[in-house]
Amino acid sequence: MKTKARPSNLCKSFAANVRAARETRGLSQKQLGQLAGLHRTFVGAVERSERNISIYKIGRLADALGVEPMELFKLDRT
Amino acid sequence: MKTKARPSNLCKSFAANVRAARETRGLSQKQLGQLAGLHRTFVGAVERSERNISIYKIGRLADALGVEPMELFKLDRT
Repeated sequence: MKTKARPSNLCKSFAANVRAARETRGLSQKQLGQLAGLHRTFVGAVERSERNISIYKIGRLADALGVEPMELFKLDRT
Repeated sequence: MKTKARPSNLCKSFAANVRAARETRGLSQKQLGQLAGLHRTFVGAVERSERNISIYKIGRLADALGVEPMELFKLDRT
């Protein structure tokens, strides 16, 4: 039986952290994409936990946001 | 011109952190792979910064190692 991967909690926390960091900086998804060399639709998909993002692109997003990559992995404990 | 992606510092730190966490626990790459549902050759390639690992598999490795994913993103500052 084939099952489609569903976003893990990690993926959802990461998505929320990217969105929060981007909004704090007053950046649009398009602007963040331009800074990171990623398409705005990719940034949007990451923020909706729809992409299984790779470590290279995680690094590019963190650089563009000016945060340590580990900051984007803080888990939401609420 | 085509260029082959080279391991970023992030990828190298991640690789070193996975290896250190695995060795601290006295696990072989094969054992870690079994715990994480990943092949031993994949674990080896991750530890050599040869794979552009995705966030899902990062989560599986962290779970198998019993660490928070963010622990695996600590940067080597030496």
